[in-house]
Amino acid sequence: MIDLDHIRRLLAERRDGFSLPQGFYVDPAMHEADIKAVFEADWLFACNVCEIKQPGDFLTLEVGPNPVVILRDRDGEVRAFHNTCRHRGSRICGKEKGRATRLVCPYHQWVYELDGRLINARQMPPDFDRDGYGLKPVHVEVICGMVYICLAETPPDISRFRAAVTPYIKPHMPDRTKVAFEMTLIEDANWKLVIENNRECYHCAGNHPELLVTLVEFVLPDDEQGRKFQDLLARKTSRWDQLGLPHRPAEGGQEFRCIRLPFHEGMLSFTMDGGPACNKLLGDFTEPDLGSVRMFRVPNNWNHFLSDHIIHFRILPLSHDRTALRTTWLVHEDAVEGVDYDVERLTQVWIATNAEDAELAAVNHRGIRSMAYEPGPYAPSEFMIRNFLGWYAAKMESFANPHAPMQVAAE
Amino acid sequence: MIDLDHIRRLLAERRDGFSLPQGFYVDPAMHEADIKAVFEADWLFACNVCEIKQPGDFLTLEVGPNPVVILRDRDGEVRAFHNTCRHRGSRICGKEKGRATRLVCPYHQWVYELDGRLINARQMPPDFDRDGYGLKPVHVEVICGMVYICLAETPPDISRFRAAVTPYIKPHMPDRTKVAFEMTLIEDANWKLVIENNRECYHCAGNHPELLVTLVEFVLPDDEQGRKFQDLLARKTSRWDQLGLPHRPAEGGQEFRCIRLPFHEGMLSFTMDGGPACNKLLGDFTEPDLGSVRMFRVPNNWNHFLSDHIIHFRILPLSHDRTALRTTWLVHEDAVEGVDYDVERLTQVWIATNAEDAELAAVNHRGIRSMAYEPGPYAPSEFMIRNFLGWYAAKMESFANPHAPMQVAAE
Amino acid sequence: MIDLDHIRRLLAERRDGFSLPQGFYVDPAMHEADIKAVFEADWLFACNVCEIKQPGDFLTLEVGPNPVVILRDRDGEVRAFHNTCRHRGSRICGKEKGRATRLVCPYHQWVYELDGRLINARQMPPDFDRDGYGLKPVHVEVICGMVYICLAETPPDISRFRAAVTPYIKPHMPDRTKVAFEMTLIEDANWKLVIENNRECYHCAGNHPELLVTLVEFVLPDDEQGRKFQDLLARKTSRWDQLGLPHRPAEGGQEFRCIRLPFHEGMLSFTMDGGPACNKLLGDFTEPDLGSVRMFRVPNNWNHFLSDHIIHFRILPLSHDRTALRTTWLVHEDAVEGVDYDVERLTQVWIATNAEDAELAAVNHRGIRSMAYEPGPYAPSEFMIRNFLGWYAAKMESFANPHAPMQVAAE
Repeated sequence: MIDLDHIRRLLAERRDGFSLPQGFYVDPAMHEADIKAVFEADWLFACNVCEIKQPGDFLTLEVGPNPVVILRDRDGEVRAFHNTCRHRGSRICGKEKGRATRLVCPYHQWVYELDGRLINARQMPPDFDRDGYGLKPVHVEVICGMVYICLAETPPDISRFRAAVTPYIKPHMPDRTKVAFEMTLIEDANWKLVIENNRECYHCAGNHPELLVTLVEFVLPDDEQGRKFQDLLARKTSRWDQLGLPHRPAEGGQEFRCIRLPFHEGMLSFTMDGGPACNKLLGDFTEPDLGSVRMFRVPNNWNHFLSDHIIHFRILPLSHDRTALRTTWLVHEDAVEGVDYDVERLTQVWIATNAEDAELAAVNHRGIRSMAYEPGPYAPSEFMIRNFLGWYAAKMESFANPHAPMQVAAE
Repeated sequence: MIDLDHIRRLLAERRDGFSLPQGFYVDPAMHEADIKAVFEADWLFACNVCEIKQPGDFLTLEVGPNPVVILRDRDGEVRAFHNTCRHRGSRICGKEKGRATRLVCPYHQWVYELDGRLINARQMPPDFDRDGYGLKPVHVEVICGMVYICLAETPPDISRFRAAVTPYIKPHMPDRTKVAFEMTLIEDANWKLVIENNRECYHCAGNHPELLVTLVEFVLPDDEQGRKFQDLLARKTSRWDQLGLPHRPAEGGQEFRCIRLPFHEGMLSFTMDGGPACNKLLGDFTEPDLGSVRMFRVPNNWNHFLSDHIIHFRILPLSHDRTALRTTWLVHEDAVEGVDYDVERLTQVWIATNAEDAELAAVNHRGIRSMAYEPGPYAPSEFMIRNFLGWYAAKMESFANPHAPMQVAAE
Repeated sequence: MIDLDHIRRLLAERRDGFSLPQGFYVDPAMHEADIKAVFEADWLFACNVCEIKQPGDFLTLEVGPNPVVILRDRDGEVRAFHNTCRHRGSRICGKEKGRATRLVCPYHQWVYELDGRLINARQMPPDFDRDGYGLKPVHVEVICGMVYICLAETPPDISRFRAAVTPYIKPHMPDRTKVAFEMTLIEDANWKLVIENNRECYHCAGNHPELLVTLVEFVLPDDEQGRKFQDLLARKTSRWDQLGLPHRPAEGGQEFRCIRLPFHEGMLSFTMDGGPACNKLLGDFTEPDLGSVRMFRVPNNWNHFLSDHIIHFRILPLSHDRTALRTTWLVHEDAVEGVDYDVERLTQVWIATNAEDAELAAVNHRGIRSMAYEPGPYAPSEFMIRNFLGWYAAKMESFANPHAPMQVAAE
């Protein structure tokens, strides 16, 4: 049972610029609140369209207790449904990915069209009204190849995000990609700690040797390192300006971030030596030195768009202390494995980095359980966590005060 | 803690002919309510008497948190006790089956007679009153070789069941059997979904190829298939009438079902080819073509009695989403393995069928967890589930309204 | 959530001389109450000083949800801290044992001195007040080489214990030992059942053949066995009196026990044949026939001090039904493995005994879950359990009645 009073008390304790009060991270009951207030209410990144390319292709996921199926209809439309039979509630599609001409419940073979209509329910009486028993729809938006879903009855507006990120991502032509590799990692940590971990690179120097071959850690503008980075940035962005590739930070507020940033001089892609990961570049690119478009959106994804591949990261909470991270590596749809790219070379930096982050999130979670824990101060370089927690607090505020005058979340 | 208000609200939402409101299946707290309202209150099928043939033979099981031991006393009586020492509460018998001259607690060796009396408690003071510390008895009834137990102080009446089923089962002489094979399967589903699965064959065509070699799926009386089945039934039952074997449905109401039904023409037993599973027939039978007596009783068993073997199915809930299914295959006590029967041939149909059903129950449970779940309509062929849920709702009604005027459950 | 009313009701049901009401042992919520009322309030045995001999040596443990690190500072002092970073709460030291010049959080490399001061927090703003973010201290007392910690703000007095046990233990010179072997066993039982099991030898005859080679089980003073034991005791204690080794029971009340008792005649140490376990005796001993100083202290340790080795037993609850038992075998710091002692010979009696006790505690726990459980009477030989439960009840009484006039626990 969700105790709204408890949530209100925790919100009252929260101080901006500090990590959250303990209960938000470690109370088992907070999982249900987070599912309802966030994951059943917001747009969630689900997958890339290339994972459901052909009519009948489907992909499943579970948002908290809710099985969902996303599919490509015969007319080419991407649709999503609650993956739950209207007869006795069975989960319909069991595999994570597959292809089907129609959705047939394994239990009693009720048959649904790819648009959700119930078209056959054998043994039901003649007066049975099939029209009242179609699959319940889930909202879908496809934005630059990324499939977003929303389980809420009335989804929030996602048009600002779409408009803002499209110019950055579209040149990478994410529609013309394929999955080279995918993996799911279960992290022993609350999902908010997984997101916090992603929102700063303060921890990179001490933990991510593989990633720092390429990635420039946060630098202060005024010191020696900062000045060098400004020079690098100026050189790279003038080239990107020539190519018509936007790079300045988009206005995402607390909702999202989108920016193109350079790698270290001479580094082109997320590999152990910084060299290319795929010889066939994405879209129409001929210039490999494009740094990466770094994107994230609350509550559940971050993404890198490089000249030669795309990486999507998607999280879904499993319980208050377990979170699933799904990572997909996409390359040009015509790239040939063994010729244009090697899966190990393509994936090793982020497989290592993900494992390192999973360990950090887990020890973070364990330490927060202590009676000695009290919210601590974020460093200035952790400003993106402050945005995340501001957004989260506003969500919980609305959830815990359902009849209060509308909170205007700075989203 | 059990919230009776919550149960009352769920009962008020229930619609006859539809699956239960979500909470009955997926709320973790409902497990405790089901244990108290059903499993600590009703008669439960435990085992066959042939499993405790000799004096001192015992068999243990756990009904929710309650360890129980069933044994054969020196005088031949079957008795059952709470398997919990009266000293400091240790479980006494640890093995699932065994033989003992007396029950000795492993902790401090308090010794109990097979009738439950405490006969030795070393180191206790001279004035210690052993008579006050015998094992607490559990009610037992043996009905056609089936051992039923009841943990309630005052057990409900089981005589109607005994009287009704005896004529069907007795000719199979279940007392003169032995266990050829037994196995326990843990299903990832609420126990009510395991029972619902057992109460209809609407799902058989799509899921049970092994079973349908023999079993006739539900047919509508008026169609072509129905007319063929009526012919088959007429032929078989006239033979059974000659043999004095009852076959028409017993009047079990919501409590139980008992009926003899034919297999497909030419099919004799639950094997992959429909041929005999054991060459030595049960009891005094000489006719192998007896179809099967199909019996079930709420809340926890279903059973098949064939000409050549008996199968008992017993379920016990482990938690709100895990259920143990124990299956025992019995053959004539004089049948010789390798000569009269082969264990693999005897068991393969139902090992496969149980595994298929376990998967269906598990995906049923997963789908019901969804926010999109709403109770759906049962098909007419699922009428036995409606009986089960009517019975269950009456049980919960009494449990949730303990001081209300007695509900007359149609049991 | 802890329900104090529930605890008060259970306390009101408790009868002296009987095992506890069921809820104290098997309610999941009781774990949190026990952690707060007992394990975050009292002194706990943690380890031996020889495990953190050198400056920078540390040892970690978790008291309920609380990670703690115990270390040797540069000045030789033993200190303990909450092992939780003041930045975002990460657990700092991950290994059970190690050596460090400073404590560095793995997440963002905040650096703490061995005295707990935060000495570096890179990227924090210039006005960041490091002094306010030192590690939170945990109280420490070293008593005869045993490190005790207390997580309470104001720890209870431990001076009576120190004064009483020092004369018994000091001659064994526990400071001049080393760990020959250590192991941790997870028992499937409530921690109080693990303690109860340790507080009586009523169960020994039926369960501990290895231990009873050496140990004299409880005997009644007036019977044949009792008279023989009195003779043995008289012979041994007159020798110990000559050596100046105290042996009579210390006045520990419900808090602790300390006594030197003989082994069976001719038996010197906990080995399978009763012969020595280590040829190099502890401290300055030349006499190997010293029986053992048997010590325990509520809530979490028991210990044996022999002529040739010391064994520490430490329990910590993991949940309401899981308890970690850590056992360490110590020998003289100059003893050489393979020459003076053999690890298998040294450890086999108690490895076997621990395993036997773990099984007993687990079946005790399982049986107590039953609806048939009711508190049963302790035998006179179980008097030390009565002390333990009296102490525990007083603790829970104070916890459940925080504003009542101070209960004077006979501690």
